[in-house]
Amino acid sequence: MPATTPARRTDTRPGGRSARVRAAVHQAVKELLTEEASELTIPVVATRAGVHPTTVYRRWGSVGELLADVATSRFSGDIVVPDTGSLRADLERYAADLARDLSDPDTLALVRAIVGAGGDGASVCRGERQRQLEAILEREQGRGHQAPTLERAVDALLAPLYYRAVFTDRSPTPEWARTLVTHLLPG
Amino acid sequence: MPATTPARRTDTRPGGRSARVRAAVHQAVKELLTEEASELTIPVVATRAGVHPTTVYRRWGSVGELLADVATSRFSGDIVVPDTGSLRADLERYAADLARDLSDPDTLALVRAIVGAGGDGASVCRGERQRQLEAILEREQGRGHQAPTLERAVDALLAPLYYRAVFTDRSPTPEWARTLVTHLLPG
Repeated sequence: MPATTPARRTDTRPGGRSARVRAAVHQAVKELLTEEASELTIPVVATRAGVHPTTVYRRWGSVGELLADVATSRFSGDIVVPDTGSLRADLERYAADLARDLSDPDTLALVRAIVGAGGDGASVCRGERQRQLEAILEREQGRGHQAPTLERAVDALLAPLYYRAVFTDRSPTPEWARTLVTHLLPG
Repeated sequence: MPATTPARRTDTRPGGRSARVRAAVHQAVKELLTEEASELTIPVVATRAGVHPTTVYRRWGSVGELLADVATSRFSGDIVVPDTGSLRADLERYAADLARDLSDPDTLALVRAIVGAGGDGASVCRGERQRQLEAILEREQGRGHQAPTLERAVDALLAPLYYRAVFTDRSPTPEWARTLVTHLLPG
């Protein structure tokens, strides 16, 4: 799509160019993350995206903030929060979906890079997942039933899923993820 | 301590020089990890350590392998495996010790960098902790009692500790870590 206004190196960025820069930079980050031994630095990202490093520094400030932005687009609304009418079935489906997502090498590379970069990325990535889990728990309470606390559900479900994905060389499988729900909701 | 043999740029590295290079490079990694926004690359580490980048590339190959080596020295034998005579008390003490360790900003920076670098570091870091946990579980079995499987103990204890440390902005506290044991060993 051609720009309707000429690209300008000023602080006022027309929407079209701004959106294209963001798309190019996000794409560059995703490509670089899948390449072995490539270093994710702002100059490297800028070169790959075909934009000036200053543009990237001005807009994102650091690799950590850039990864947080990529994480926001990646993890928002990517998993449909299940609504089966049963807490156990909702949690089993959610845990299995998350296991599948974390078994994807691209997702895993992004999560690892986010953790490595420090900054806000990790809480972006965690925050979205916790909100989805909270929605499942609140729906059960809305049905007039007891549900575990969010903290307990995070410790029992999200934590083992992320730990296995990030710290071990075993992929989290949907079957194993469902056993985590059995431990959270015994009987 | 003065070198007994002169430093040489060859493949045969006398023990003294080799040990000094290792110490200088490890120290450089630790320093760089605590500095905000410093990029951990082999040339940066080499400059800080006062050695030639080639030396670092030849010995460690990549940032990931270098961090795995730093992790091996850092996490081996650093926590005394408790032996109180009771599984519950052993696990409570172990979980509390690990929470304290993961609340240390230097430890956390190393763990995050290891995850970010991919490679073998994460399994080094995890492997040592799992072996310590396994020793506690096996001792209970040696006393003729039932104990949870290692996988279950990892999911219930190590995973929430590492998840909270790495993905949230809350430090794992010893008190909270002990509640994880209550969930693993109810009743």
